[in-house]
Amino acid sequence: MKIQIPRGTQDILPGTVERWQYVEKKARDICSRFNYQEIRTPIFESTELFQRGVGETTDVVQKEMYTFKDRGDRSLTLRPEGTAAAVRSFVENKLFGQPQQPTKLYYIGPMFRYERPQSGRMRQFVQFGIEALGSHDPAIDAEVIALAMSFYKEVGLKRLKLVINSLGDTESRTAHRQALMNHFSSRVNEFCSDCQSRLEKNPLRILDCKKDRNHELMASAPAIIDYLNEESKQYFKKVQAYLQAMDIDFVVDPNLVRGLDYYNHTAFEIMSDADGFGAITTLSGGGRYNGLVQELDGPETPGIGFALSIERLLMALDAENVELPIEQGLDCYLVSLGDGAKDRLTPLLYQLRANGIKADKDYLNKKLKAQFKTADRLQAKYVAVLGDEELEKGIISVKEMATGEQQEVSLTEIVDFLKRKI
Amino acid sequence: MKIQIPRGTQDILPGTVERWQYVEKKARDICSRFNYQEIRTPIFESTELFQRGVGETTDVVQKEMYTFKDRGDRSLTLRPEGTAAAVRSFVENKLFGQPQQPTKLYYIGPMFRYERPQSGRMRQFVQFGIEALGSHDPAIDAEVIALAMSFYKEVGLKRLKLVINSLGDTESRTAHRQALMNHFSSRVNEFCSDCQSRLEKNPLRILDCKKDRNHELMASAPAIIDYLNEESKQYFKKVQAYLQAMDIDFVVDPNLVRGLDYYNHTAFEIMSDADGFGAITTLSGGGRYNGLVQELDGPETPGIGFALSIERLLMALDAENVELPIEQGLDCYLVSLGDGAKDRLTPLLYQLRANGIKADKDYLNKKLKAQFKTADRLQAKYVAVLGDEELEKGIISVKEMATGEQQEVSLTEIVDFLKRKI
Repeated sequence: MKIQIPRGTQDILPGTVERWQYVEKKARDICSRFNYQEIRTPIFESTELFQRGVGETTDVVQKEMYTFKDRGDRSLTLRPEGTAAAVRSFVENKLFGQPQQPTKLYYIGPMFRYERPQSGRMRQFVQFGIEALGSHDPAIDAEVIALAMSFYKEVGLKRLKLVINSLGDTESRTAHRQALMNHFSSRVNEFCSDCQSRLEKNPLRILDCKKDRNHELMASAPAIIDYLNEESKQYFKKVQAYLQAMDIDFVVDPNLVRGLDYYNHTAFEIMSDADGFGAITTLSGGGRYNGLVQELDGPETPGIGFALSIERLLMALDAENVELPIEQGLDCYLVSLGDGAKDRLTPLLYQLRANGIKADKDYLNKKLKAQFKTADRLQAKYVAVLGDEELEKGIISVKEMATGEQQEVSLTEIVDFLKRKI
Repeated sequence: MKIQIPRGTQDILPGTVERWQYVEKKARDICSRFNYQEIRTPIFESTELFQRGVGETTDVVQKEMYTFKDRGDRSLTLRPEGTAAAVRSFVENKLFGQPQQPTKLYYIGPMFRYERPQSGRMRQFVQFGIEALGSHDPAIDAEVIALAMSFYKEVGLKRLKLVINSLGDTESRTAHRQALMNHFSSRVNEFCSDCQSRLEKNPLRILDCKKDRNHELMASAPAIIDYLNEESKQYFKKVQAYLQAMDIDFVVDPNLVRGLDYYNHTAFEIMSDADGFGAITTLSGGGRYNGLVQELDGPETPGIGFALSIERLLMALDAENVELPIEQGLDCYLVSLGDGAKDRLTPLLYQLRANGIKADKDYLNKKLKAQFKTADRLQAKYVAVLGDEELEKGIISVKEMATGEQQEVSLTEIVDFLKRKI
């Protein structure tokens, strides 16, 4: 039997890969303009990192991780997301001690979750994310959101919907937690067993439950936004004012929550309501996590970030029929007639390429006509033809494909000639 | 205990990551000019792929792979190299049926080998490689070598040494194999147990043995180059003639071999003799593998490629003291004095960035002097200062740091002003 690609993964082939290159380049451009710098962490980490950094009780950690022992009996896990590793690196490399703060990082790379593969959900997928560590200025919450929105807009998406909420500070969250426990406790036996154990541990996560989402107590559950203390309210107001000042539209959704303890204040999601999706679809999410650095043994450091899936983005581009401005085609295709001319093409081709010209030639001993056909297929702007006769005269015949214009150029001048043209 | 990065892996942090970005961008540029297109295959593959594609008897497969079972009981392996996956994808996606042949692919990405970590040898490392599938024109052997050499030269390496050899076609290899068996068989008991089992299975691999490298029979072993049949000789001559025509220096080393059965004809290595290394060091290797596509259940298809480690390349750049031309610094840093001005910076900053200007501001409520210090540290070309007074007048004061020149610009014109300057 032929060996197949592992289930839930994909090959990204020429013809498609250019879309990935385009959006990733755009992500890098935007990060550069916003003064975020790249960090690259390993593909795998100690399993413990994700248990502590993502949360022992999450579905990701309980059900979806690729965990294995290496030959030295260490438990390793293919990273299911990017934040925990970025924070591990921030702590381990003492980036908090660098003179320039906040530390503004971005990453682009593969992540791994063992889920049921379906459209837009692969077991290996690529995330682009940023983390801003070291500031609790609401202006940086707005910056992080603005970066995500700018990225989507600049690649061409229009049907975007930004939803924000505040989870408040610890005091606010404690008050809300108590209200949730009061709300659910008398009837908790009507909920699934997961929810029953969540009631004491983390009642906020009940609101995330997929099984009990239609229970009547869900809609009437107390919203965090009604439990924000004065400081948290002011913080959230500031974030909104900055977004308004930047002309970034948003709606406040009091039901947008994050289950983990170290999340607080700003939470946001970006969705697409493009017709092509059928239903409104979440493209990315982010939020503030002032407790995570400490959770991973670093000094108390506020943080905020987001992560988005490149797969989802490409689906959204399709759903909106966005055509990416991808450059294709060769500058020049070299065609030869006769053995001497054929041999001469190799160093000529090398010379063109060394001078920045995107060029190619035939490697299958094709006849003249078939070589021209290849030039066409490769969308060559110029086709240069060398026969043994031209070779003797030291010239080459160059045709500009758009105009059909043809002229003879000396072999010693062809590089400069094409460099001027391109 | 703090969670640490897994042994043999590294974080690539801001300050270093720019070097990676630079050389990877250069690799992509060169591939584009040579008309090679990117392919991205998954981080893990079926274990069987590497057993068959890399070779069951190799150290890589026997000792160095990260192999594990997923939750569906499939045996998966983190890819230890790139060629097997590229060929798997070529076969599975029927790229051999595409109109444009040969299929010219490149990849850049992490690979994994469980080895003893040491300088220049990590358990996770990054390879850049290319594969040209579908042509047995010696000109494409020369092209593949030329691409590798161009890449090294264009990033700035000078102390390069290209070594080539030919392993011949199947007939030549069979003759050589017989000669090797005759040479070693009478005294094989003086060799290590690995070599003893290699004698029948693959005597060529005896020449690679690290334990027996000083045995007297090694130096006198028959060289493949003396067993090339006429066709193989002609092929090798052509490759050399093309390299000469491109002015690429090389030496023929009859001892350069590749142990696996499907390697044939051209084999090459590129080394550095930079003083900083102490001893001559291999940077990369490649060669022709006309049997591999068939080994992986594809149609008979010739192939040639190379792979190089980015880590090794960066070490070679250090060893030659090459300074990469990495652009750094912001275009503009925004400084504020007063609360109203501070709030105004957020939308202004957003506007600058939306217009292609690399800009930033303070997020730590720093005093004026400290903000200027940050601007300095971030190597800002311009510093724009907004006080509450300027805000009222609708202007901002802009200083060009290189000249010290200062001027007032209207807030409505600052974006255009900076765009013109940058």
